Amino acid sequence: MKRSERLIILTSMLVDRPGETLGLYDFSRVVGGAKSTLSEDLSIIKQTLASRGLGSVETVTGAGGGVTYIPALDAELVGEKLEELCRELSDPRRILPGEFIYMTDILYSPIWAWDIGRIFAEKFRSSKPDFVLTMETKGIPLATMTARALNCPLLIIRRAHRVTEGPAVSINYITGSSKTIGNMSLPRRALPLGAKVVLVDDFMKAGGTARGMLDLMQEFQAQVLGIGVVVETAQPEKKLIDNYYSLLTLKNVKGKEVQIEPTN
Amino acid sequence: MKRSERLIILTSMLVDRPGETLGLYDFSRVVGGAKSTLSEDLSIIKQTLASRGLGSVETVTGAGGGVTYIPALDAELVGEKLEELCRELSDPRRILPGEFIYMTDILYSPIWAWDIGRIFAEKFRSSKPDFVLTMETKGIPLATMTARALNCPLLIIRRAHRVTEGPAVSINYITGSSKTIGNMSLPRRALPLGAKVVLVDDFMKAGGTARGMLDLMQEFQAQVLGIGVVVETAQPEKKLIDNYYSLLTLKNVKGKEVQIEPTN
Repeated sequence: MKRSERLIILTSMLVDRPGETLGLYDFSRVVGGAKSTLSEDLSIIKQTLASRGLGSVETVTGAGGGVTYIPALDAELVGEKLEELCRELSDPRRILPGEFIYMTDILYSPIWAWDIGRIFAEKFRSSKPDFVLTMETKGIPLATMTARALNCPLLIIRRAHRVTEGPAVSINYITGSSKTIGNMSLPRRALPLGAKVVLVDDFMKAGGTARGMLDLMQEFQAQVLGIGVVVETAQPEKKLIDNYYSLLTLKNVKGKEVQIEPTN
Repeated sequence: MKRSERLIILTSMLVDRPGETLGLYDFSRVVGGAKSTLSEDLSIIKQTLASRGLGSVETVTGAGGGVTYIPALDAELVGEKLEELCRELSDPRRILPGEFIYMTDILYSPIWAWDIGRIFAEKFRSSKPDFVLTMETKGIPLATMTARALNCPLLIIRRAHRVTEGPAVSINYITGSSKTIGNMSLPRRALPLGAKVVLVDDFMKAGGTARGMLDLMQEFQAQVLGIGVVVETAQPEKKLIDNYYSLLTLKNVKGKEVQIEPTN
């Protein structure tokens, strides 16, 4: 096989499986070749992707070692994506009664979910989380992609306990905006005690759900490394939680006008 | 830039965005070069990936045209993955009271979700669906990945109607196994009338949920091209729906023994 062909195949295998460690055996099974040739190829791929900000290729040594592709998104591209998202969301046809914005189509688009998931992953990667958590339902696709970009397991907090998941920890929480009492639940066996987690969600108004998630995490003695939301509302200014990372801020919905901007 | 570098960059851009059509401009923005060089590079990538069964690269002509990467999974690899999944799921520690099998960790693993999503995508690709649908919650990650592999929007059917999604169509359905009445709902604006859809879910026992999804799709005059489930139970043999594609069949759970096999 020619070097150019090997480079194409190895790159496609790496990029297809972000975060996973692929052993030299996995590669040589497909492209053949001596170990030294393979190492040389991987080093060319590493340098090329790094030079264009397309991600890094990291070598994991020891037993079970191999090579891992870590996707990247440069800051300029993130800025462009967020501007585009604002344009999309400020379309007046998205305004629903009650001054809600219809954003389900964006949240459920695999392309947007992957972009947003990657932005969150970029933000939280250095803290090395063990799990990505979200509360059902609308944030699940982007949480799935955050988990994929970080190569972490995803966990979904449910509104009610299900018999098919075994013993669970349930808490009540107060939804910040409507002041009703909700329930959230996570199976005991899903999250080991003391794990490092990041929480992601699609939308935050008063922060009641996020507050509930933090309380639930305490029951698991989890270390919450970060909270990411796609859209937060400017009002109320004082949220029920302190530290979080939001991509966009919804300033106002008035008549036919939606004011939404990248969060400063 | 050397050809080898261009090939690496182009391959990574394509594989990172399965199903999306990337214009020649998107590529030349990153790698530069004349249009003819670019076409030559893309044709090398196309041939190389195809020759190893790693996916196809298709050219879309006309305005808005460009090049699309379609991921592939060869039949032998699918067989290996399903065998591995059976081994994982037959671990007796997964048995829950009521002879349920704990499979949440698998369903929420981004690696498994991507593998399963790709298997479903492979099955349904030729029928060219417009949307991938699932019923909340546990099937959402794999439905997200199915949608990504097909580059279709995902739609999630909810158990209750939410005000933040606008007018919705709701139906009642009878859960096949426990004979209780449930509700499922989808926003009117989410799915245009007469669309072509595939339905995916994690688990099927009697098929009540799938039956409900079919009924809901009738309200949207949707054409259901296929139904995919990860695990079906051998009993009851007669399901409430006729045509579906299941990956694994759970034959029996008895004491400490789980009998699960790839579906014939």
